[in-house]
Amino acid sequence: MEKKKNTIEGLGEFGLIKHLTSDMPVKHQSTLKGPGDDAAVLDYKKKLVVVTSDILMEGIHFNMIYTPMKHLGYKAVVANLSDIYAMNATPRQIIVSLAFSSKLTLKQVENLYSGIRLACENYNVDLAGGDTSTSITGMAISITAIGEGEKKKIVYRSGAKKNDLICVSGDLGAAYLGLQLLEREKRIFLENPEVQPELKGYDYLLQRQLKPEPRADIIDFFSKTNALPTSMIDISDGLSSEALHICNESGVGCKLFAEHIPIDPETEKLAAEFNITPLIAALNGGEDYELLFTISPGEYVKIKENQTIKAIGHITDSDLGCNLITHDGTFIPLQSKGWDAYKSKD
Amino acid sequence: MEKKKNTIEGLGEFGLIKHLTSDMPVKHQSTLKGPGDDAAVLDYKKKLVVVTSDILMEGIHFNMIYTPMKHLGYKAVVANLSDIYAMNATPRQIIVSLAFSSKLTLKQVENLYSGIRLACENYNVDLAGGDTSTSITGMAISITAIGEGEKKKIVYRSGAKKNDLICVSGDLGAAYLGLQLLEREKRIFLENPEVQPELKGYDYLLQRQLKPEPRADIIDFFSKTNALPTSMIDISDGLSSEALHICNESGVGCKLFAEHIPIDPETEKLAAEFNITPLIAALNGGEDYELLFTISPGEYVKIKENQTIKAIGHITDSDLGCNLITHDGTFIPLQSKGWDAYKSKD
Repeated sequence: MEKKKNTIEGLGEFGLIKHLTSDMPVKHQSTLKGPGDDAAVLDYKKKLVVVTSDILMEGIHFNMIYTPMKHLGYKAVVANLSDIYAMNATPRQIIVSLAFSSKLTLKQVENLYSGIRLACENYNVDLAGGDTSTSITGMAISITAIGEGEKKKIVYRSGAKKNDLICVSGDLGAAYLGLQLLEREKRIFLENPEVQPELKGYDYLLQRQLKPEPRADIIDFFSKTNALPTSMIDISDGLSSEALHICNESGVGCKLFAEHIPIDPETEKLAAEFNITPLIAALNGGEDYELLFTISPGEYVKIKENQTIKAIGHITDSDLGCNLITHDGTFIPLQSKGWDAYKSKD
Repeated sequence: MEKKKNTIEGLGEFGLIKHLTSDMPVKHQSTLKGPGDDAAVLDYKKKLVVVTSDILMEGIHFNMIYTPMKHLGYKAVVANLSDIYAMNATPRQIIVSLAFSSKLTLKQVENLYSGIRLACENYNVDLAGGDTSTSITGMAISITAIGEGEKKKIVYRSGAKKNDLICVSGDLGAAYLGLQLLEREKRIFLENPEVQPELKGYDYLLQRQLKPEPRADIIDFFSKTNALPTSMIDISDGLSSEALHICNESGVGCKLFAEHIPIDPETEKLAAEFNITPLIAALNGGEDYELLFTISPGEYVKIKENQTIKAIGHITDSDLGCNLITHDGTFIPLQSKGWDAYKSKD
């Protein structure tokens, strides 16, 4: 049988992994053994090990009609690095498990890996292992990210205390609006493939949806300023859902002030076009990959110069519940309506 | 909206994870934080961290027609623990990422988790995190296993030396024959649902396919006897493919003697029925989850009393290639025809 070295079939599973990972030498001393054995071997010495894993499914988390493969690879890594940063830890390695249809070309898989590689470069992470498999259903990408942290600096969801300030990085709701834009153009394209997509003027929203960046800079800033949040979570399911996680795990309540929630002008503009309240996109939209954290007023002084961090509320006793305070002073209980795949939309 | 607490929709993603993991308290001191935060936090002190991850796809790695959910969960864990043992390390935690159709009932997901839980109990492993998602394609299960090892005792694929003995645990080919049996009964069932499956007399083959066990006992035995292999790999893709991995990574050749390759009588019996050469099932069949290792003759003395370990050949110079020696002395070059999902069957 003639083997075609430039096809996936010709390379075979092991050849494919070697082909895809050969130009990714390991960078960290902690990566004793990267790809190519039964498991990766890591030397974390006295540091704590922080591990997270998630799975992205075609049709649920990404749509191959409008997601370029390189962006998909990049975003799949980012989603996991964001979880490591949310522990106030530093990612060091990722392990990639990939299942895809035999209809995919080698070029498409290479493009996916070029996105994975770029994310590894940008965030100084080693690809430490991987598994590829064929799929007769859809494509699935599962990434495990491993990082290191210091015992006294790991930040859990459970440490929020009464009177702590509640802060977010960046702005919220943009990735959700970016998705709405892509969905609209997909519908138009499916109805009439001749029509060119209308994506101009929304570069920021598209970037937030297609190529999000995790907030490594915020973790660096905490380290430089020696500031320590009391609790932290990354915003992947919407502000409302994440604030509830922190309050539930910490046994506290919260007040979030609508007027302080950071929303980009581009988000507001497109929200108006779609007849969506921008605040709803910020509260319930997914995939922002910003950080939500609580910090004592004393520690807040150390970080308040950072223009990308906004204080949006404070922690209260649990019996006051978790509320959004609108511009006119109305209390609205927070609800977890975010990116929760099992709930019916209502 | 009325919430039905006994359905997946009613529980929601976060409720579902809590529901599934609530009766699995963490057992290890090294598990500082299990499920319920952005990432698991592990304290491995001075030990090395060993991490592996793989993905199982419906229709490729399992078939829901004949795989009971509990067995599927158990096997998904075993496949990963086996990789940790193959490093001469001890698994301590797993992280489970699961994607499944909304057609699955809560009972089915509970059954899957009951298998995951049983494997965790049997092999003393903590469930340290998880992610569940819906799928509009097939079901996917990705498991990350994390273990600890001592720097001087980790065994890679790359350490085999000339004149080392090549050993395997247990017997080979049984899981492959078990799969053939299930496939045959599936075809018969699809043609005529009235016919009862004919599975009697093949309990061992079915157990090897549906509920394999990783060789924790072999790793314990190495520890007790203070024996250290020079290289090791777990046999998930067939003996031939795994022996080639060790030889390629170690830069050596090998001689495997057909007459020494351990095959169970039940495997031989069913192979005859299917007109399959049992040796081919041992060489190319998948999912045995036995260990293949090389060991110096001096170290072999320490382990030779173990009846479940068989010496099947030895390591040679690389220029002699990797060969199977048949009963009549014929040399047959080993080929990687195993469980390689991308190659066309020939």
